Amino acid sequence: MSLIEALNWRYAVKKMNGEPAQQEKVDQIIEAIHLAPTSSGLQPFRLIVITDQALKEKITPIAFNQSQITDSSHLLVFAAFENYTEEGIDETFSRMNAERGLPDSATDAYKAQLKGMVLSRTAEENFNHATHQAYIGLGAAIAQAALLKVDSTPMEGFNGPELDKLLGLNEKGLKSVVLLPLGNRDEANDWLVNLKKVRTPMDKFLIEYK
Amino acid sequence: MSLIEALNWRYAVKKMNGEPAQQEKVDQIIEAIHLAPTSSGLQPFRLIVITDQALKEKITPIAFNQSQITDSSHLLVFAAFENYTEEGIDETFSRMNAERGLPDSATDAYKAQLKGMVLSRTAEENFNHATHQAYIGLGAAIAQAALLKVDSTPMEGFNGPELDKLLGLNEKGLKSVVLLPLGNRDEANDWLVNLKKVRTPMDKFLIEYK
Repeated sequence: MSLIEALNWRYAVKKMNGEPAQQEKVDQIIEAIHLAPTSSGLQPFRLIVITDQALKEKITPIAFNQSQITDSSHLLVFAAFENYTEEGIDETFSRMNAERGLPDSATDAYKAQLKGMVLSRTAEENFNHATHQAYIGLGAAIAQAALLKVDSTPMEGFNGPELDKLLGLNEKGLKSVVLLPLGNRDEANDWLVNLKKVRTPMDKFLIEYK
Repeated sequence: MSLIEALNWRYAVKKMNGEPAQQEKVDQIIEAIHLAPTSSGLQPFRLIVITDQALKEKITPIAFNQSQITDSSHLLVFAAFENYTEEGIDETFSRMNAERGLPDSATDAYKAQLKGMVLSRTAEENFNHATHQAYIGLGAAIAQAALLKVDSTPMEGFNGPELDKLLGLNEKGLKSVVLLPLGNRDEANDWLVNLKKVRTPMDKFLIEYK
């Protein structure tokens, strides 16, 4: 199946049937997120995968009682760094250089420039920047899930601070930014399944300079 | 090629060779972006595709003289809505309902709730929200490009306000948020091509609740 066919097959499933997504496929979705590019390779987010049903039940009221939280088999939580730190940047580049067989000094000039930029921004600016990187991962996850015919529903409708508290994310320097339950559509009971996918007309969406 | 193989094949190409990406493949990348999901289906961004070499040359100094701007064949600019408007929300839902053969009133309750939320946020909050949706599209674009073996380099290093001025984006209620030049790697002259792809160790990246 091509990605275009897969993206036409997928939709934001409103009712899942409780049948689990296969772990082997979920592992590929996680790997796609892990491989997705991020600014300077900093990967400023963490991926939380919840299969614990009791924990999902606790999350349901935090996510406005959306049924996919518990009817999915795997609830993915994308959690972005609250801020960048000098230590985190050093660690990333040290690991990168070591794995590439380069001296740690190989990236000194680039790292100094990056730190000058990143560490002079406010925590809020850096959190926004980190969130953008998490959303690249979300895009990759949605693509990979669709290619494997795993249903997924991106969700921004939840109380972030409450979820962060429940998962202890602040202690880890993280804030939840978007959810992606994975599972299988309940075709008989999903009002959205047969409705046409509608997009902005291409001649309005696309601006070309030839 | 699986998406995992494709994401391993791709990297942020630093030197492109000037050979064009095939238009047929670029069309599929555009379509993947167009099909990518967005919050409430609002698609709060526009995609600008620049093949005009003279215009790309004008953009080069705005993007810190990165050579991929002119060595790519297609420069994609993702431009997010500066804000949401009531008219824009109405228009989106009217088109959606019309294409689905539903009365315009079908989404009245949902639309009222959405407007209550969106229109009470600041312009900055809405711009951030719109930017997130553009990044889902970016993730889809990177995935589709890699699957088609088109090289791409996501770029946040450019002067947004200057690019917006050059492209007249403010008059359209848009702000540029990220660039994606498309083309072909210059293997002989790209310092990054043979370096190992490095990611955060999975046991640090992934947090599981089983």
